Amino acid sequence: MQNESRKMAAYRAQPAFCRGDHTLTVSSELFKYNRKRLCERLQANKDVPKGAIVLLQGGESETRHCSDHEPVFRQESYFHWAFGVEEPDFYGAIEVDTGKGIIFPPKLPDSYAVWMGRLLGLEEFRDRYGVDEAFWAEDILKVLKEKNPSTLLTLRGLNTDSGKYSREAAFDGISEVFKTDMELEVLRYSNKISSEGHIEVMKSIKPGMYEYQLESLFKHYCYFMGGLRAGAYTCICGSGDNGSILHYGHAGAPNSKEVMDVYLTWEASIIATRLISHVHSQPMESVSWVDMHLLADRVQLEALKELGLVKGDIDEMMKVRLGAVFMPHGLGHFLGIDTHDVGGYPQGCERIDKPGLRSLRTVRTLENRMVLTIEPGIYFIDVDDIAITEDGMELLTCVPRTVEEIEAIMEEGRRRPPMPLPQDMKK
Amino acid sequence: MQNESRKMAAYRAQPAFCRGDHTLTVSSELFKYNRKRLCERLQANKDVPKGAIVLLQGGESETRHCSDHEPVFRQESYFHWAFGVEEPDFYGAIEVDTGKGIIFPPKLPDSYAVWMGRLLGLEEFRDRYGVDEAFWAEDILKVLKEKNPSTLLTLRGLNTDSGKYSREAAFDGISEVFKTDMELEVLRYSNKISSEGHIEVMKSIKPGMYEYQLESLFKHYCYFMGGLRAGAYTCICGSGDNGSILHYGHAGAPNSKEVMDVYLTWEASIIATRLISHVHSQPMESVSWVDMHLLADRVQLEALKELGLVKGDIDEMMKVRLGAVFMPHGLGHFLGIDTHDVGGYPQGCERIDKPGLRSLRTVRTLENRMVLTIEPGIYFIDVDDIAITEDGMELLTCVPRTVEEIEAIMEEGRRRPPMPLPQDMKK
Repeated sequence: MQNESRKMAAYRAQPAFCRGDHTLTVSSELFKYNRKRLCERLQANKDVPKGAIVLLQGGESETRHCSDHEPVFRQESYFHWAFGVEEPDFYGAIEVDTGKGIIFPPKLPDSYAVWMGRLLGLEEFRDRYGVDEAFWAEDILKVLKEKNPSTLLTLRGLNTDSGKYSREAAFDGISEVFKTDMELEVLRYSNKISSEGHIEVMKSIKPGMYEYQLESLFKHYCYFMGGLRAGAYTCICGSGDNGSILHYGHAGAPNSKEVMDVYLTWEASIIATRLISHVHSQPMESVSWVDMHLLADRVQLEALKELGLVKGDIDEMMKVRLGAVFMPHGLGHFLGIDTHDVGGYPQGCERIDKPGLRSLRTVRTLENRMVLTIEPGIYFIDVDDIAITEDGMELLTCVPRTVEEIEAIMEEGRRRPPMPLPQDMKK
Repeated sequence: MQNESRKMAAYRAQPAFCRGDHTLTVSSELFKYNRKRLCERLQANKDVPKGAIVLLQGGESETRHCSDHEPVFRQESYFHWAFGVEEPDFYGAIEVDTGKGIIFPPKLPDSYAVWMGRLLGLEEFRDRYGVDEAFWAEDILKVLKEKNPSTLLTLRGLNTDSGKYSREAAFDGISEVFKTDMELEVLRYSNKISSEGHIEVMKSIKPGMYEYQLESLFKHYCYFMGGLRAGAYTCICGSGDNGSILHYGHAGAPNSKEVMDVYLTWEASIIATRLISHVHSQPMESVSWVDMHLLADRVQLEALKELGLVKGDIDEMMKVRLGAVFMPHGLGHFLGIDTHDVGGYPQGCERIDKPGLRSLRTVRTLENRMVLTIEPGIYFIDVDDIAITEDGMELLTCVPRTVEEIEAIMEEGRRRPPMPLPQDMKK
């Protein structure tokens, strides 16, 4: 119990997201720094008067259809970026001049403690999320009146991927594509864990297993070993022909096929890897993402020509956008709290209305601290995540890439007892 | 590949939900029989004229907040009960006089095939879900006009658990609490798999693990071994004091504590089990569920008195509803497609406004083919699922219950390599 007290004291001293010493602890400083960045952008914006307050609404608790089943809540991404709050039905405010962060948790009836555990008080919420002040959501009007802001800045932005709007009144700064050191640490960690999850699957896969069993193994590894409760997206575990379906795994094609030929699947990913390594060898900063997409197209067409699958002049193929037939999507996208992260098309950036290019989720020039996926593919897709650095790029994904590496991993899998999850993970 | 062809042929011949030979195959006959039961009820209802058609809308595809992230779709329960359709954005109709089932899948743009896989045609949808006819959802008005029904019966019902309404126009028959043999087989199977999942956790649990790792193990077992992709509810993995929080595990208390003392946790469940066995020994059919709740209260109060935790006359305690202090919820609820299944309060059944009893999710008299949970608890909860049979009850849950059984399982866990998932599950 001494050990427990020590841990609780540490928890109180340094508010953070924590799932045990074997996982990455995320300090509330990360979110505080995001609020600071936001305020700096707003202070520099001549349209924002002194005394402004940013007001954001967090995600609301929901039930499935008309039932009383509540899926595990996952925070709305803007709110998460600014406050790191994990629970539903919060509001949050930021004083632009001072950078002061304020949260407004919902005041739940005392009786809820029986179902949800001891309900935190305002000071506890304040300390848990490392903000300056906390008030109940029901008092939000009163509190804001007292603070008497010159302007209330709220968020209304079109999500160009979903076509949906988030809440009121656009301002820049919250569509931040440049990652801080603390954010890069989180992205490195989630890449590390999910790369290891892929290796775990490589070790376990055998013909006769079902695709969903690979999904189950992968999710179990990420949660058990890394504390990652929610996957970024639905697992795509297509084997055989299904490997060419871009978003396989959805409810209508739920990873339900028996895996017939493991070897072929990994072979395909080796070819994809060869294409990636071409792309990787390019210097990255200050390169247009459109040019990167075109380069990937060219490399892929050259490979297809080598294999005798297409014939003719590569420049001619590029002119008629033949690459889009084989890679019917953009080369990659910004990555962050959301799989398809914000900032791809800030004001002034327009989509290019040509095959393939119109699917790009950004047309921006790459800059230091941007994080993107690289997903070239000729209908067989492999995804890598990269961070742009001052002198090039950092590959966040860490999976085996050569025939030798993959064969070694699979051999290791054949020789071990099935799924030996470490019981002593702190070593 | 011969093997594969054989399987595909079998799949086409007998449409079904199937996740491999090692899991339970659910025939579309189950849903056909549900439609038949519904029609029989409606035919016997004098308010329903000849030539009526039931029209239901399935669940719609959704994105998380304003992003383009689509969580894995889970069908709306009424629609699932009637058609077994796993995909979003369907409509379905049933001709009451003939029992004919008709589905209306959404017509997706051809280009979606790149993302979702080959799009099925109408005949394939018809065969996949074992209905009589299939038309595109966009043609629903035209089709219904041609069928020219005397009345269109749609569904509008208040979910008394969530307080939300499902869609339009109430009629009974679709709030069916009596399970068919085929439905009982599914419930037995999901109980079997999740009971095994609990045993898996018992074998693996050690002080120093985190609660969420138990959640991860449990979900992995259920999916990997049983093909169960969606859990019925958020895992409640409270250790130590958290064991007394009824819905622990939600986003604000996400199973994130280190497990300090395993033994205590399972000891508590042994005491709960003792209470359950008292309840089990009662003859069940034609017993009021209210009386069962009161009996559980009495047994628990007697145990508390034995332990010296309460003093005085049990009858007096019952009169003042003291039991509700220790068991602040109902004894259990109907179980089916939803965790809190339909039919608890049909017209004419009223809630009893007394402590504890007002939390009951049904006050009905138990009848053959009802399925319920039994969850007595003195703030430490153990849940069992039962089906009422003609001569008593069938216990669906199959976990160790005695000190000896639990110790044997935990010893077995200590002696084996960690998490030995069967690689050859078809044996």
